[in-house]
Amino acid sequence: MIRVTVWNEFVHEKKDERVKEIYPDGIHNAIAAFLGKEEDIEVRVATLDDEECGLTEEVLRNTDVLIWWGHMAHSKVPDEIVERAQAEILKGMGAIFLHSAHHSKLFRRLMGTTANLTWREDGDKERVWVSKPSHPIVRGLGRYFELEHEETYGEPFDIPEPDELILMGWYNGGEVFRSGCCYKRGNGKVFYFQPGHETVPTYHNESVQLVIKNAVRWAKPDYRVEELVCPHVKKIEE
Amino acid sequence: MIRVTVWNEFVHEKKDERVKEIYPDGIHNAIAAFLGKEEDIEVRVATLDDEECGLTEEVLRNTDVLIWWGHMAHSKVPDEIVERAQAEILKGMGAIFLHSAHHSKLFRRLMGTTANLTWREDGDKERVWVSKPSHPIVRGLGRYFELEHEETYGEPFDIPEPDELILMGWYNGGEVFRSGCCYKRGNGKVFYFQPGHETVPTYHNESVQLVIKNAVRWAKPDYRVEELVCPHVKKIEE
Amino acid sequence: MIRVTVWNEFVHEKKDERVKEIYPDGIHNAIAAFLGKEEDIEVRVATLDDEECGLTEEVLRNTDVLIWWGHMAHSKVPDEIVERAQAEILKGMGAIFLHSAHHSKLFRRLMGTTANLTWREDGDKERVWVSKPSHPIVRGLGRYFELEHEETYGEPFDIPEPDELILMGWYNGGEVFRSGCCYKRGNGKVFYFQPGHETVPTYHNESVQLVIKNAVRWAKPDYRVEELVCPHVKKIEE
Amino acid sequence: MIRVTVWNEFVHEKKDERVKEIYPDGIHNAIAAFLGKEEDIEVRVATLDDEECGLTEEVLRNTDVLIWWGHMAHSKVPDEIVERAQAEILKGMGAIFLHSAHHSKLFRRLMGTTANLTWREDGDKERVWVSKPSHPIVRGLGRYFELEHEETYGEPFDIPEPDELILMGWYNGGEVFRSGCCYKRGNGKVFYFQPGHETVPTYHNESVQLVIKNAVRWAKPDYRVEELVCPHVKKIEE
Repeated sequence: MIRVTVWNEFVHEKKDERVKEIYPDGIHNAIAAFLGKEEDIEVRVATLDDEECGLTEEVLRNTDVLIWWGHMAHSKVPDEIVERAQAEILKGMGAIFLHSAHHSKLFRRLMGTTANLTWREDGDKERVWVSKPSHPIVRGLGRYFELEHEETYGEPFDIPEPDELILMGWYNGGEVFRSGCCYKRGNGKVFYFQPGHETVPTYHNESVQLVIKNAVRWAKPDYRVEELVCPHVKKIEE
Repeated sequence: MIRVTVWNEFVHEKKDERVKEIYPDGIHNAIAAFLGKEEDIEVRVATLDDEECGLTEEVLRNTDVLIWWGHMAHSKVPDEIVERAQAEILKGMGAIFLHSAHHSKLFRRLMGTTANLTWREDGDKERVWVSKPSHPIVRGLGRYFELEHEETYGEPFDIPEPDELILMGWYNGGEVFRSGCCYKRGNGKVFYFQPGHETVPTYHNESVQLVIKNAVRWAKPDYRVEELVCPHVKKIEE
Repeated sequence: MIRVTVWNEFVHEKKDERVKEIYPDGIHNAIAAFLGKEEDIEVRVATLDDEECGLTEEVLRNTDVLIWWGHMAHSKVPDEIVERAQAEILKGMGAIFLHSAHHSKLFRRLMGTTANLTWREDGDKERVWVSKPSHPIVRGLGRYFELEHEETYGEPFDIPEPDELILMGWYNGGEVFRSGCCYKRGNGKVFYFQPGHETVPTYHNESVQLVIKNAVRWAKPDYRVEELVCPHVKKIEE
Repeated sequence: MIRVTVWNEFVHEKKDERVKEIYPDGIHNAIAAFLGKEEDIEVRVATLDDEECGLTEEVLRNTDVLIWWGHMAHSKVPDEIVERAQAEILKGMGAIFLHSAHHSKLFRRLMGTTANLTWREDGDKERVWVSKPSHPIVRGLGRYFELEHEETYGEPFDIPEPDELILMGWYNGGEVFRSGCCYKRGNGKVFYFQPGHETVPTYHNESVQLVIKNAVRWAKPDYRVEELVCPHVKKIEE
């Protein structure tokens, strides 16, 4: 079983009627719901208001893949939790960052950059293109999929050159974006996936769900260490 | 002085009235004309019909940056010329591949892949976005520039992951494309630049000209060897 | 079952008594022998003297991973066979290049570079270090493994920057080398692995065998197409 | 003029007689001395004990390339200073990290990883090999250079795959290391250079000095912004 923890700041859904209508139990539970139907995946959720943000040492050690959604409350996540999660990724845990999580402390820490981009909210239609059909994360998609409305994210996106760029977003209002980016950091695999604005039902879209399910399977650790060490070694005797 | 050789198969311009009207002296001469106005650049041209395609050992050895445009006649370029040009790039010569040159033997040889893509001709408008504003090739551009009509190139584009992806194309018909891709191969720098269909006046566009001028300055060799060798060395004596 | 084809030029083993003694049935059969013991792998061999080098369309289509050893006879492999194998890799077949196969036409075609290096034969001891412990190809190795004698390969190695550098070679005579390099080309995975000089029993070494077994499992296609196409598409109707 | 700031924690040199003897005015002043002789470079120094570590907003804004040496006192550099320097790099300032600066907060922030490695101190001889002869940072070096004694750094080195690996270290005690690694982060160029243990006179070595001088010229900004922004844009009107 792949043990997934879906983390969500869970703020918009409590404050904004439009968001509440789309995700009555929060984005995290919407994601957990479709992941939980998979036979090889078991899911738990965690949110900002949980003790230690729901990300105790214990939880993280028992998480294979961490999914992260955040937007308004990035700064409320304590640095200590960010460092703990980062360390666990470097040990081997997988991580998937959704949409506005580009600006989470955790994603920025892993990238080393601002992860800034340009953005606007005009209800654009997005067409997400597969740029690397052989990648396991896009398995089962056609040449592209569409989202009737999404927040528009545009280049430049301030990230290190991805190890693999597998999805590229087109918006009918005229922008393009690197919508699916794969990285290796330490022993962990990291995937950034752009769709998922809170005011549109993106996580109810089957293609989006497929990408997230594939990404979970791709990101699960196949090598993970207990501790991060910088060992003082002895000279090898001949 | 940066010594540029602009190579063009020079076929469309002789056969097709529409193309001839836009580029009466051929695409190569249109490119040579704007490059030749630069104080630090000197240009020569070469075409398929020239002896040895105009790419003798002598010419290549005295070329700092080779610009390549081809489309219908890729297969008519002899393998020997392709290998000669490839070797010169690996020694340090810069190379810029324009538009349909993605399918030239030379570009494919350097990439190791098919360089296939999807394409259609519907007179789409293209908006070319700068994805890496700090790169010298995009200096002087704004956030994007537009081409009223271009042939539409779409993903997947079968190339190795670029060292740097600096331009991304958006088409109003719905596609996206990696329009500006930088590579290092051997000692040489290689740039692929997507705009430039023969039936539209792309090379008369100032932004396109700026990109090509910048690319020439970026691609010029700062290290170049006389010979490509796989040396049998002696053990270093202590 | 992973269907592996081990290709060997099979020249040294017939001419040189020292080599014959180490690999009486040829390097290909030595490799096939240890691979064939794995439950999930089935192996066939092919050599230069076989019709079409043993690499017919039929064989390649039914090969998941192609392993390549060559040295003296690189130039005798017909271009047509090289192009056929390259196409199959771009469609999705995996490929593993061993030792002097760095100079095979096929590897050079995939890299786009000379794949030159420096070399000497002084019976150096090599220590091969794991630089990326989380990579599936190094699973089961310790921090390093040793080869009592190997041909010395040294930098610079004229290859495109690897997608992942997973093994690095140290020689007691003073050189270093990028000994394990991973690439993606088209839909296919490509691995270069430096050890394997014909006059030393490298392929009888358990660590070397482990790396090759792991590499087979890593390189096997998880996405493969029937045909390489550059499709003319229609505009997507809204 | 390229404006360089050489930062050094300046601790060992005050405490340890051996170090004081080699670098009586501190490592920073030794580096500043040879850089200051270059006609195109002007240098200032800054240390941990200076107010704001000598890295005020004003100083950083007027620094083209920041050089960093630290070891014992990494944790004493306030996070605020680290974030300020990181921001300036992302805006376009160049950065060179020397030796044990692999473990500085600033380098780790830029990499997103632990930057752990293995290490031992046995007075090994190091031979530093050029793996990318065309890179401007290695211009003027031969195939390699030697350091009679250096601290031994070994793989695995927990860093993201470098954009370009240009130097590789060999130690006579048996280790290898990625000794020269180039990165782009935001608008800034970042170079990690392994030699420079405090108890050996590495920064008096001419080849080491040449690498640092070349790296300064390579890392200097050719594009730099005033502010790091994530702009809310308007839809482009047709």
